[in-house]
Amino acid sequence: MTLIGHLINGELSNEAERTQDVFNPSTGEVSKQVAIASQATVEEAIAAAEAAYPAWRATPPSKRARVMFKFLQLLQDNSEEICRLIGEEHGKIAHDAAGELQRGIENVEYACYAPELLKGEHSKDVGPAIDSWSEFQPLGVVAGITPFNFPAMVPLWMYPMAIVCGNTFVLKPSERDPSSTLFIAQLLEQAGLPKGVINVVNGDKTAVDTLLTDERVKAVSFVGSTPIAEYIYATANANGKRCQALGGAKNHAIIMPDADLDNAVNALTGAAFGSSGERCMALSVAVCVGKPMQDAFVAKMKAAMEPIQVGPCTDNSKDFGPVITKEHQQKVIGYINSAEADGATIEVDGREAQVEGHAEGFYVGATLINGVTAEMESYQKEIFGPVLQVMCVETMEEAMQLINDHEYGNGTCIFTRDGEAARYFSDNILVGMVGINVPLPVPVSYHSFGGWKRSLFGDLHAYGPDAVRFYTKRKTITQRWPSAGVREGVQFAFPS
Amino acid sequence: MTLIGHLINGELSNEAERTQDVFNPSTGEVSKQVAIASQATVEEAIAAAEAAYPAWRATPPSKRARVMFKFLQLLQDNSEEICRLIGEEHGKIAHDAAGELQRGIENVEYACYAPELLKGEHSKDVGPAIDSWSEFQPLGVVAGITPFNFPAMVPLWMYPMAIVCGNTFVLKPSERDPSSTLFIAQLLEQAGLPKGVINVVNGDKTAVDTLLTDERVKAVSFVGSTPIAEYIYATANANGKRCQALGGAKNHAIIMPDADLDNAVNALTGAAFGSSGERCMALSVAVCVGKPMQDAFVAKMKAAMEPIQVGPCTDNSKDFGPVITKEHQQKVIGYINSAEADGATIEVDGREAQVEGHAEGFYVGATLINGVTAEMESYQKEIFGPVLQVMCVETMEEAMQLINDHEYGNGTCIFTRDGEAARYFSDNILVGMVGINVPLPVPVSYHSFGGWKRSLFGDLHAYGPDAVRFYTKRKTITQRWPSAGVREGVQFAFPS
Amino acid sequence: MTLIGHLINGELSNEAERTQDVFNPSTGEVSKQVAIASQATVEEAIAAAEAAYPAWRATPPSKRARVMFKFLQLLQDNSEEICRLIGEEHGKIAHDAAGELQRGIENVEYACYAPELLKGEHSKDVGPAIDSWSEFQPLGVVAGITPFNFPAMVPLWMYPMAIVCGNTFVLKPSERDPSSTLFIAQLLEQAGLPKGVINVVNGDKTAVDTLLTDERVKAVSFVGSTPIAEYIYATANANGKRCQALGGAKNHAIIMPDADLDNAVNALTGAAFGSSGERCMALSVAVCVGKPMQDAFVAKMKAAMEPIQVGPCTDNSKDFGPVITKEHQQKVIGYINSAEADGATIEVDGREAQVEGHAEGFYVGATLINGVTAEMESYQKEIFGPVLQVMCVETMEEAMQLINDHEYGNGTCIFTRDGEAARYFSDNILVGMVGINVPLPVPVSYHSFGGWKRSLFGDLHAYGPDAVRFYTKRKTITQRWPSAGVREGVQFAFPS
Amino acid sequence: MTLIGHLINGELSNEAERTQDVFNPSTGEVSKQVAIASQATVEEAIAAAEAAYPAWRATPPSKRARVMFKFLQLLQDNSEEICRLIGEEHGKIAHDAAGELQRGIENVEYACYAPELLKGEHSKDVGPAIDSWSEFQPLGVVAGITPFNFPAMVPLWMYPMAIVCGNTFVLKPSERDPSSTLFIAQLLEQAGLPKGVINVVNGDKTAVDTLLTDERVKAVSFVGSTPIAEYIYATANANGKRCQALGGAKNHAIIMPDADLDNAVNALTGAAFGSSGERCMALSVAVCVGKPMQDAFVAKMKAAMEPIQVGPCTDNSKDFGPVITKEHQQKVIGYINSAEADGATIEVDGREAQVEGHAEGFYVGATLINGVTAEMESYQKEIFGPVLQVMCVETMEEAMQLINDHEYGNGTCIFTRDGEAARYFSDNILVGMVGINVPLPVPVSYHSFGGWKRSLFGDLHAYGPDAVRFYTKRKTITQRWPSAGVREGVQFAFPS
Repeated sequence: MTLIGHLINGELSNEAERTQDVFNPSTGEVSKQVAIASQATVEEAIAAAEAAYPAWRATPPSKRARVMFKFLQLLQDNSEEICRLIGEEHGKIAHDAAGELQRGIENVEYACYAPELLKGEHSKDVGPAIDSWSEFQPLGVVAGITPFNFPAMVPLWMYPMAIVCGNTFVLKPSERDPSSTLFIAQLLEQAGLPKGVINVVNGDKTAVDTLLTDERVKAVSFVGSTPIAEYIYATANANGKRCQALGGAKNHAIIMPDADLDNAVNALTGAAFGSSGERCMALSVAVCVGKPMQDAFVAKMKAAMEPIQVGPCTDNSKDFGPVITKEHQQKVIGYINSAEADGATIEVDGREAQVEGHAEGFYVGATLINGVTAEMESYQKEIFGPVLQVMCVETMEEAMQLINDHEYGNGTCIFTRDGEAARYFSDNILVGMVGINVPLPVPVSYHSFGGWKRSLFGDLHAYGPDAVRFYTKRKTITQRWPSAGVREGVQFAFPS
Repeated sequence: MTLIGHLINGELSNEAERTQDVFNPSTGEVSKQVAIASQATVEEAIAAAEAAYPAWRATPPSKRARVMFKFLQLLQDNSEEICRLIGEEHGKIAHDAAGELQRGIENVEYACYAPELLKGEHSKDVGPAIDSWSEFQPLGVVAGITPFNFPAMVPLWMYPMAIVCGNTFVLKPSERDPSSTLFIAQLLEQAGLPKGVINVVNGDKTAVDTLLTDERVKAVSFVGSTPIAEYIYATANANGKRCQALGGAKNHAIIMPDADLDNAVNALTGAAFGSSGERCMALSVAVCVGKPMQDAFVAKMKAAMEPIQVGPCTDNSKDFGPVITKEHQQKVIGYINSAEADGATIEVDGREAQVEGHAEGFYVGATLINGVTAEMESYQKEIFGPVLQVMCVETMEEAMQLINDHEYGNGTCIFTRDGEAARYFSDNILVGMVGINVPLPVPVSYHSFGGWKRSLFGDLHAYGPDAVRFYTKRKTITQRWPSAGVREGVQFAFPS
Repeated sequence: MTLIGHLINGELSNEAERTQDVFNPSTGEVSKQVAIASQATVEEAIAAAEAAYPAWRATPPSKRARVMFKFLQLLQDNSEEICRLIGEEHGKIAHDAAGELQRGIENVEYACYAPELLKGEHSKDVGPAIDSWSEFQPLGVVAGITPFNFPAMVPLWMYPMAIVCGNTFVLKPSERDPSSTLFIAQLLEQAGLPKGVINVVNGDKTAVDTLLTDERVKAVSFVGSTPIAEYIYATANANGKRCQALGGAKNHAIIMPDADLDNAVNALTGAAFGSSGERCMALSVAVCVGKPMQDAFVAKMKAAMEPIQVGPCTDNSKDFGPVITKEHQQKVIGYINSAEADGATIEVDGREAQVEGHAEGFYVGATLINGVTAEMESYQKEIFGPVLQVMCVETMEEAMQLINDHEYGNGTCIFTRDGEAARYFSDNILVGMVGINVPLPVPVSYHSFGGWKRSLFGDLHAYGPDAVRFYTKRKTITQRWPSAGVREGVQFAFPS
Repeated sequence: MTLIGHLINGELSNEAERTQDVFNPSTGEVSKQVAIASQATVEEAIAAAEAAYPAWRATPPSKRARVMFKFLQLLQDNSEEICRLIGEEHGKIAHDAAGELQRGIENVEYACYAPELLKGEHSKDVGPAIDSWSEFQPLGVVAGITPFNFPAMVPLWMYPMAIVCGNTFVLKPSERDPSSTLFIAQLLEQAGLPKGVINVVNGDKTAVDTLLTDERVKAVSFVGSTPIAEYIYATANANGKRCQALGGAKNHAIIMPDADLDNAVNALTGAAFGSSGERCMALSVAVCVGKPMQDAFVAKMKAAMEPIQVGPCTDNSKDFGPVITKEHQQKVIGYINSAEADGATIEVDGREAQVEGHAEGFYVGATLINGVTAEMESYQKEIFGPVLQVMCVETMEEAMQLINDHEYGNGTCIFTRDGEAARYFSDNILVGMVGINVPLPVPVSYHSFGGWKRSLFGDLHAYGPDAVRFYTKRKTITQRWPSAGVREGVQFAFPS
C-alpha cells in the first residue's frame, strides 16, 4: 500500500514514527497510509528551511516571483492529476476539486506580483538632507498548518506568498488527504525553487507542537476549527512567534422581501451544499424576513433541491461527494437529528442518502431544515455538512442581531435589490466577509480573507495584501550623510 | 496636597482605592498624590468608552480629523504648561520636555491625515459586473498603557490615531508622572471630542488587569519593559484582544574607521545622555572598529563630556535632569559599579554627581565606560541611565554579530561615509530601526516605530501607517446586483 | 476708490498698466478698481517665485506642511472677512460664500498631509544588492489661472498643494472679484510662508500669455470655460509646460421611476439654483424617466421653488444672489427666451426678478423650464445661471445616451433606490464625477476633481491625489555600491 | 521577397499603398519588403480596435491579466525566433536581442499585476452614510508609435499595460525592423486575446498622422527623437488626445576621485557600446573629476576596449552589431570627424571598422574620444552610435552643471563610494533616471521610465505605475442612499 511521506530539503522521505490510514471517502475503504513524522523529522525540515533561508532571502523579489510564474504554469498543466488526488482522499468530485484548485492558482498569481507588493515607503527630506524609508523584510522560517477540506487551496493561500516574500517554509497538511498537497509542493520545486525553501511534513500533534515551540520558526499560519485555532494562537505567541489562526464559521444569508428569489435560491443551492458543506464559507443559515418570504423561499428551495445528487468523487455528473470520515458523517446526521428533536421540520432529508455501488461511502444528502431557532444546538454549532437551515424573523434589524450575536463572524450575505439595505447591512454587520447578493463572499486573491469575532485570531487576514504584511517585518532606516566628503575634496585622496 | 485623578466620560474624578506619592525627582520630595483606581472605576471608564463608541464610529473621518486639527493647535498653545508638568514629575528639563512634546505633536499631525489613511481598496469587476472592496473599520474600545519616560509623547503615539480611526479609548498612564498626560487628554476634549471617547484612569496592576481581561476592550497598546510587555501580550491575547507591546532595548552604534568622528561624538553626546538616558532609543553602546578608532573616540568623547551638566528640571541651562526615582538612581549606579568590578574602565564617572541646592534629587551624572565586553552584566541589561559604554572589535562583521546576538533589537546606528558599508549594515542587521549617521533613528511620525526580537511583541509597529492597520479591522464586501430591476422596468411600479 | 493690486515677493504692489472696474453685483455699482498688470509685473512675480524656489524646495515637506496647518487656522479665524469680500464682488450671500470657503479649507487640510502624499516607492534588491526608488520632486515655478465663480475655493484647489509639494506659485485670479483671493494669499504669508513662494498678479490676457510663454514657468493649472481651456492647454504645451485645464459643463440628473421624489426635489433645489447656478457642477438638467415621473417632478419642483428668493449678498435670509455682471444677466435671460421660442414651457420664470432697493443689481430669479429637447440651444450650451431644465425620456438607456452624447462630461447624478440601476449608471456613463442620489457629486478633497470629454484637458484631475502627481515629477534612482570598501578594510586607511 | 504586412482584427493583411525596403544591416542587403499602409488601412485598424473595445472593457481585469500570463509563456517559448528576427532587421547580436526581449518580458510580468494595479480608492463615510470611491476606467482605443532601436521591448512597454487596463490598441512600429514586432503581436493573440484588441499597422507619416487625428483614438504613446516627439505631442493634444512622447538623450557619467575605477570602466564598456550605442539610455559622456582621474580612466578604458569587437548579428561571439542604416553609419562617423576637427583626441577609432565577409554591413567600431568640451557639436547632439566621449572638470559641481545645462535629461550616473556625494547628486541633478554606480539606470519594470527636460513630453512616464495612470482615466462616484426603503418596510411591498 502506498505510503505518503514528507518533502524535506528537496527529497522525499518516508520516515515515520508510525503510520495512519488514509481513506477513500467515496468507497469507505482505506486506500493509502500516511507517515506520521517524529519530532526529529520535523526538526530536520525546520533545519532545512533555516539552511535555505540566507540565499533565498538574498534572491531578488523579481527572481523569486519568476519561480511562481513557472509554478502557475505547472499547476495548470497538472490540474487533472491534482483533482484526482483530491478526489481520492477528500471525496470531492472533479468539478469541485477544479474549483478549489482554481482558487489556489489565483493565490499563486497574486504571489507573482511580489515586486510591486514589497515596495517600501520612501521619504526624502524628513529633515534637512535626511531621508528615511521603510523596508519589508522576510521573517525567516515560517510554518503552515492546514485542514482537510481544501488540501490544495489553503496551503496555496500560505506558502506562495510567504516564500515570494523571502521566507522559507515548513507545511504540515492534514493527515486525512495529504497526497495532493505533497504533489503540488513537488511542482513548486520543479518550477525552480531551491531545495529546502519549501518542506512538507505529515504528522499529528507532535509535529504541530514542534512547529509551535521550535525557536527557529518565526511565524505560524493556521486554518482549522476554533478550539484548535485558539490553542495554536496562544502557544505560538507564548513561544515568540507571529501567528494568524483561522477558525470556525456559521454563515447566514438574509433574504429580504424585495430579493430576487430565483437568484437567491439558485445561489444558495451551491453555497449550502457545494463541497458537501465542508467549507468555512458554506452558507448554512437562511434568514427570511417575513413569513411570506419564508414560505416562498422554502417552496422554491425544495423544488431546487430535487435534482441535487450526492455521489462518488469519480462521477462528475453528481453535485457533491461524501464527507471526509465515517465519524463526521455521523456527527452531521446527529445535528440533523437534534434539530428535529428540537422541533424543527426536516423539509428535505439527506440522512438516508444511498449511493449505488458505494454503500460504505461516507455520504450525507442535501438537507433542508425549516423553523430553526437560535436556541437549537444545530444553529449554535458549525455543522460542516450539506445542511441548510431556515429561520424567519420579522425585520432586517432582527436578522442582523442574530448574526451579530453569533460566536462566529466569518461570512454573511444579504439578498436585496435595495441600495440602502445593502449599505446598512455591510456597514453594521460584525462579520469580516460580506456579500451583497453573493452567497459565498470569499474575497478574490488580491483582497484578503478573514473573519471577525471567534473566526480569526490575529491582526492580519489570510492571503492578499494582509499576507504580505504578515510574512514580512518592517525595518525603518533613517539616513544622513556627513558633508565634507569626496564631493568637497577634503577627506579622501585619489586612491593610489 | 494635589490629588491627580481620572478623566471619565468627560468628567474629572478623584475616586481612589488608595493614593500613591508622586515625587519631584529634581528635589526628591513628594509633591503630589495620585489616585489609584479600583476595578470599578476602570470598568466605569470602559463603560463610558463603550457608550461613546456608536456615535463616534458613525462620525465621518473628516470630522474626526478636524478635532485633531484643533487639538494640535491647543497643544501648541499650551506647550509651556505641559513642559512644566512633565518637568515637575519626570524631571526633564524644559528643552528636553519640549522636544518630547514636539514628537508627540507630530503624531497628532499624522492623525489629521485620517481621511487619506483610511481609504480602502476598491476593485471593479472582480467578476462580471461584480465589485469588491475592503474597508478598514474601527475595533471599538481600545486601551493604552504607557510608561513614565515619555508621559506626553507615548500616549500621543496611541490615542490620536486610535480615536481618529473611530475607536474610543481608555488610557492608563504611568502613575509616576501622570499630570501632563491628564492635562493633554483634557485639551483633546476641549478640542471638541465628545465625552467618553477619551478616558484616563490612573492605577496599578488592578487597572492593567482589568483592561486586559474586560471583554469590552478590543485591543491594547503597551510601551514599557520587556518582561511586562510579554505579560501584557500573552494576557491580552488570551482574552481575545489584539495587542502590540513594546519592550526594552540596548542600542549600539558602530563607529567605522572612516566615520566623521566629530560628527559621531557630537551626535552620541545627545543620544546617550539626553533625557538622562531614560529612552528606549537611547544609544548606550559605542562599538569602535579598530583600536585606533577606540582610542580616538574615547579621547574625543571625554573632551565632549566635560561641559555636560546634570541639573534640576527648572534650570534650562543644564543638559539633562535627574532619573525618575531614588531606586532607579541606585540601580543605574549599581550597573556602573558592576562594570567596574568586571574590569571595565570608568572614563567619566557620574556616580557622585552633585547638584547644588538639590542634594536629595535623584541625579546621576553622564558616565563613560570603556573596555566593556559582551559578558558583562552592564552590557547585557538595559541600564536606562546616562551611561555610554565603549567596546572595541576588529571588524564590522564582528560588530554586527554583537548586535544581532543581543536579546533586543530596537534601534542601532552606523557612522561611516561609505555607501556600501551603510547598505550592508542596514540590510543585515536584525534591528527594527536603523540609523546611517543618525544616532537616534526614531522614525518620523509618518513612518512607524518598532523594534525586532524581544523589543516588540506583535505584528504591527507603533504609530504611522502600522497604527492605522492596528486600530482597524478589515472588512471585505463583494457585491453583485441582480438584473431586471428598475432599469429594465420589470419589477417596480411607479410608487403611488 | 480702492485699487486692488498684486502680491509679489511678499509685498503688495499697485503697479498697473491700466485699471479696470470691479462691480458690486448686488447693487450694480462700481465699487473698486483692479490693477491690470503689465508683462513686466508678471515677469517680476515669476522672478520672485523663481528666486524663492531653491530654498523652499529644500525645506522638508513636514515643515512645509506646518505652514499649511497654520494657514488653515488663519482661514477659519478670518472667515467672516473673506465671505464679506466674496459677497461684495461676486454677489454670493454669506451662507453660500461660507460653503465655498469651507470646501477650500478642506483642500488646505489635504495639503497638510504632504509628508504622507509625497512618499516615493522603494524597492530593495531589484538586482543583487541593487536598490531602486522613485522620488516625486517639485517642478519649480507653477502658475494658476482661476475663474470668477469661486474666488476663494478654486485658487485653494491649486496653490496649497503646489506649494506644499515644494513649488513656488504665481496666481492670476479673476479680475472680476480679486479681493478675497488676494486677502487669502496674504494669510498664507502670515502663516509663515517665505516671501516669493506665493505671488498674485491681477491682469488680463497679457498676464495670461506671459504666464503661458515664460520659460521659467513649468506648469499651469486653469479653471474656466472650454474655449479658453483649450487655448490655455495648447499654448502651455507648445511652450513646454505641463498643463491641466478645466472647462465647461452641462450636468444632468436622471430621475428614475423608483426615485425618492421628495429627496430628489429637495436635493435639486440647491444643486440647480445655489450660487445662482454659476457653478461648473450646477445640476441644470433633470431627465425624468417616464411621463408620470415628469409630471410628478415638475409639480413638486414648482411647489418647492415657491419660497426661493434671490437677493443681495448682504441679506443672509435670501437663497442666492445676483449673477456676476450685467452682460451675464442678459445672456442667461437670452437662453431662457430661446428655450421659450423653441417651444419649451417656462414653468417658473425668473427673468423679471425684482429685488427691493436693488433695482440695478444683476438678478435673475430661479427658473424652471419644462419640455426641453436635445435640439434646443438652451440645452446644448452651458447657461451658468439659476435655470433648471426638465426633459422626459422613456427609458434609462435613453437618458444615459443623452448624457453620453453631450459635449461635456463633468458631473451627473441618478436618483434611484435600485442598486443595479446605480451600478449600471456609474459604470457606463461618460462623465468624470458621478452621484448616486447626490446631485452635486463634487469629490471630497481627498479624492480628485475632474470631468471627461471637453470638460477637462490634461491627464490628471484637480486637487486630491492627482494634484500631488501633477505638481511633482518622478525621478527614479537605481543604486549599487561597489564592494571592497571600508567594510572590508581594503581601500581606505583610517583618516589621519 | 517576403512582404511584411499588418495585423488587423486578428487577420494578417498585406494591403500596401506602396512598399519599402527592409535591410539586413549586417550584410547591407535588402532582405524583405514592408507594406506601407494607406490611411484607409489605418482607419480599418482603428475601427477594429473600436469594435473590440466594449467587450474587452467589460472583461474582468483578472481575466485580462490571464491573457498576459499566457503571453509571457509564449514569449519565453519563442525567444529564439524573436531574437533571430530582431537580428536580421536591426542588426543586434543574439545575446543583445535576448537582453532586449527580457526587458520587454518584464513589462508583461508587470501587466500581469493588473488586478492589484487597478484598485481604486474607497472612502467610507465622506459624509453621514455617504461613501465615495475612485475608479480607473480605460480610455478606449489607444495608439503606440515605436522606434527601430528596440523593436521588441518598446512596444512591450506600451500595449500589454494599455490592454490589460481594458483598452484596445493600434501599434505602428518602425518600418525599418517590423518583423519581430508583428510576430510578438501574433503571440499575444495566440495567448487568447480577442480579435481586434491588438492591431499592428506598418506605415509612414500617413499612418502616424491618421492615428494622431482620428477622433476614435483617445491616447498616443510615442518613443523616438525629440523633434518628432514634440510634433507628436502637439498634434495629439490639439486633437483632444492624451499623449506621452519620449525623445532624445545625452547621458553623462561622473567619475569621482574615489570611484572604484575597475568597476566604472567595466560598467561603462557595456553602457557605451552595447547595442552599438543605439539606446536612449546609452552612456555616451564620461565626465572625470580631476586630471588624474581623466588620465587613469582613459588609460584603463583603452585597455578595456581592446578586445571589443563589432560583428554581424549571427556571430554571438562578437560584442555588438552594425548600426541600423548606411545613412546612420555615415552620420555617426561624421560626429567623430567633427570632434576631431574641433580638437578632441580620438583615442580609439572605430571609423574604419572592418568585419570579415561583411564588407557592405553598416559597421562602426567602438570609439573613445578624449578632451571633449561643451562647445563641440559632438557633445551637443545625440550621436546614437558606439562612441564614448571623455571630458574633464575640476569639481563635482562643475560636472553637475554640465549635465543640468544640457538640453536632454534622460539618464545619468555617478561613480563614487561616498554616500554624501551620491545623495547630493541624485537630489540635485535635473535628470529623470539616475544611477549610483549603475551606468544604465533603466528603471525596473515595476518603476517607470522617463526623462526630464526635452527628453519627455507629458505628465506621466512610460511603463510601470505611471503607465497604469496614463492608460486609465479617473471616475469618482459619490453615493448616498435614501432611507425608508425596504429595510424599514415602508415603500416596497413583497413582490407578488
